[in-house]
Amino acid sequence: MQSLESKTTSETSFDSLRPLAWNEANQGVTLIDQRLLPYELKQVEVKSHTEMADAISEMVLRGAPLIGIAAAYGMALAAKAGADLCQARKLLLSTRPTAVNLAWALEQIDAVLQGCDLDSPETIYQKILTKAHWILEDDIERCKRMSEHGAKYIREKFGNKKFKIMTICNAGALATGGYGTALGLIRELAKNDLVEMVYACETRPRQQGSRLTAWELAYEQIPVTLISDNMVSHTMKEQAIDFVITGADRIAANGDTANKIGTYALAIQAQYHQVPFFVAAPESTFDRSLETGDLIPIEERSSKEVSHINDKLITAESGVEFYNPGFDVTPNILIERIFTELAT
Amino acid sequence: MQSLESKTTSETSFDSLRPLAWNEANQGVTLIDQRLLPYELKQVEVKSHTEMADAISEMVLRGAPLIGIAAAYGMALAAKAGADLCQARKLLLSTRPTAVNLAWALEQIDAVLQGCDLDSPETIYQKILTKAHWILEDDIERCKRMSEHGAKYIREKFGNKKFKIMTICNAGALATGGYGTALGLIRELAKNDLVEMVYACETRPRQQGSRLTAWELAYEQIPVTLISDNMVSHTMKEQAIDFVITGADRIAANGDTANKIGTYALAIQAQYHQVPFFVAAPESTFDRSLETGDLIPIEERSSKEVSHINDKLITAESGVEFYNPGFDVTPNILIERIFTELAT
Repeated sequence: MQSLESKTTSETSFDSLRPLAWNEANQGVTLIDQRLLPYELKQVEVKSHTEMADAISEMVLRGAPLIGIAAAYGMALAAKAGADLCQARKLLLSTRPTAVNLAWALEQIDAVLQGCDLDSPETIYQKILTKAHWILEDDIERCKRMSEHGAKYIREKFGNKKFKIMTICNAGALATGGYGTALGLIRELAKNDLVEMVYACETRPRQQGSRLTAWELAYEQIPVTLISDNMVSHTMKEQAIDFVITGADRIAANGDTANKIGTYALAIQAQYHQVPFFVAAPESTFDRSLETGDLIPIEERSSKEVSHINDKLITAESGVEFYNPGFDVTPNILIERIFTELAT
Repeated sequence: MQSLESKTTSETSFDSLRPLAWNEANQGVTLIDQRLLPYELKQVEVKSHTEMADAISEMVLRGAPLIGIAAAYGMALAAKAGADLCQARKLLLSTRPTAVNLAWALEQIDAVLQGCDLDSPETIYQKILTKAHWILEDDIERCKRMSEHGAKYIREKFGNKKFKIMTICNAGALATGGYGTALGLIRELAKNDLVEMVYACETRPRQQGSRLTAWELAYEQIPVTLISDNMVSHTMKEQAIDFVITGADRIAANGDTANKIGTYALAIQAQYHQVPFFVAAPESTFDRSLETGDLIPIEERSSKEVSHINDKLITAESGVEFYNPGFDVTPNILIERIFTELAT
C-alpha cells in the first residue's frame, strides 16, 4: 500500500463515519485506513482496481458488507482504466475467501454488464460507477432497516430497559457503507437511550474490538467497556449481559453463520449462560448454495497476526508454532434470530 | 522493583528451569523476572521481605504454588533483618488475594514459630529458612507425584497415544518450585513421547500463555502451538483436542476452582465439545473453609493490563471503560478430575 497517496484529516471532516467515499474530483475512492485506527484517522486514495484489491486483502478496509462495496468500486476503476474486466473481477474475488458479500456485489456488476457489449468504455464505466454508488447507498439503507427491525424485536422481547450488550469484532459503520449491522442495532437502541453498556471483546489477533468497535462507540458517545476475549464467560455471569449481537461474513442455507474467529466461542458461552445470541446481517450475506456452514471456506491468515502485536513478538523466538483461522462457524442452533433488512 | 539488583544470565546456567533459588552467598533470593520473558531471561536478587512483597504483587513471579514458596522465603528475610514478623506476615499475605497457597505457606511458617519465643533471632531465622527450603523442595516433589498420577490416569483412560492437549496461562515450572502442575503432567507424557501438540492459549491480558507457557515448552522442546484466546472452540472442533488441563489458584470444598481468567470459559467450551477437562494442583490449593467457589475472592487488576500491550495503548484514548478480573471460577460440574500429589 506504500504507493497510495495518503492524507490525514481531522475527525470533524466526517459528518458521520463513512469508511469509503467516492472522490468525484479525483475519480477515485477515499478509504479510511482502518489498520491505523485508533491511533490515527487517516484516509488513503485508491485509483485503480489493483490498488483496491490490495486494500481489501491487506485489510485497509474490512467487514463483509464494506468489502462488497469496495469490490464494486474496484470494478468501476477497472472500467475507467480500460482494464480487462474479467481479469479484474477474478482478482477482486480472490482477495478474501470467507465473506460472500464480495461475490454478491460482483454479481450486481455482472448484471449491469449484461448486454453492454456495444457500449463505449466511458458508458460502461459510468454504468458500473452508478451501480457502485447504488450499492453503497443501498447498504446504508439496508443497515438502517435491519437495525430498526432488530431494535423493535429486542424492545418487544425484553421491554424498554437499559441493555447490557456484548459484541465481538467490528460490525459497525466501519464494516459497512456507514451505519453498521450489529452496531447499527446498538446505535438504534442508543438513540432511545436504551444502552447501559456495550461490552466489546478485544478480538485477537487483529483486535478489531479494541481498535475499531471501542473507538467507534466512544466516537459516538455510546457507553463501552473493553474486555479481553477470555473474560466473556466471567462477564456474562457477573455483569448480567442481556444479549449478544454480532455481524456475519457468510450465512449458509440452514442458518449456520461464519463470522470473525471467536464468534462460535461467544455463542457457546452465551448458550451456557442463557444469554440470547443474535446476528445482524444484510440479505447479501446469505449463501443459499451452501447447505450447511461446514461448506463455508475459512480463511487462514498469516501466523504473524498471532505471534506479534504492533509488530512486537509476544512469544519465544523459535520453537513455537501458530494457528490463525480468521473465522469460525456458529451452528444455527446457537442463534436465536438473524436480523436482516427484510421485515421478520 | 527498581531497587533490586539484576543480572542477565545465559540460559545454560539453568540446569532445569527454577524460577526461584536461595542464594547462600548473598543470603537472599534469586528470582527469574517473569515480566521480561520471553524477551530476556534475567534474574533479580530479593534481599528483604518488603522487596519480596513487591515482587509478588508486581508479578516478577506468579503462579499459586510459587507465590507460596516466595512468601515463605519472605518470612525468612524478615527474620534475618529482625523485622516484626507479624507485620511481615500481614504484608506478604496482602499481596495477592486469590491464590490460597500463599496463606497455606504462611501457616507452615506459623507452625515453625510456635514455641520459639525463647529462641535467638538467628535461630528463628535459620528455622524459617530451613522450612522455606523444605517448602520449595517439597513442592517440586509434590508436582512430580501429581504429574505421575495424572499421566497414569490419562494413559489408562485414553490408552497410549500421541495427545493433543490444550492449556491456558502458565502452570509450569515457572509457576511452581520447578516442575509444574498442568505442564508437569504434560512433561511426564512428553518423557514417554506421548505429546503430539500442546495448544497454548495466549491468555490475555498478561499473556502468560504466549510469554511463559509457549516459551517454557519450546525451551523443553515439547511441541507447542500458540492460539489466540478466542480460537479455543474452533481449535477444539477442527483439531480434535484430546483433553484440557489447567492449574488452579484456589479450590473450594465442593471442587469449584478459581484459576486465571478464561479458565471458566475454556471449561464451558470443553464441555460443549465433549473434551475432558482436568485440573492439576497441589493439596495446598484446597481451601475447605469455603463451601463453594462463589466465596473465593476475585482479584480485579489494573485496567492498564487490558488497555495496553507492551506499554502501547490498543484502543481509543478516551471514552472507553475497562474490566479486568484476574481470575474466574470453574464450577466442579465442568471438571472431570482434579489431580493432586495424593494417589487417587
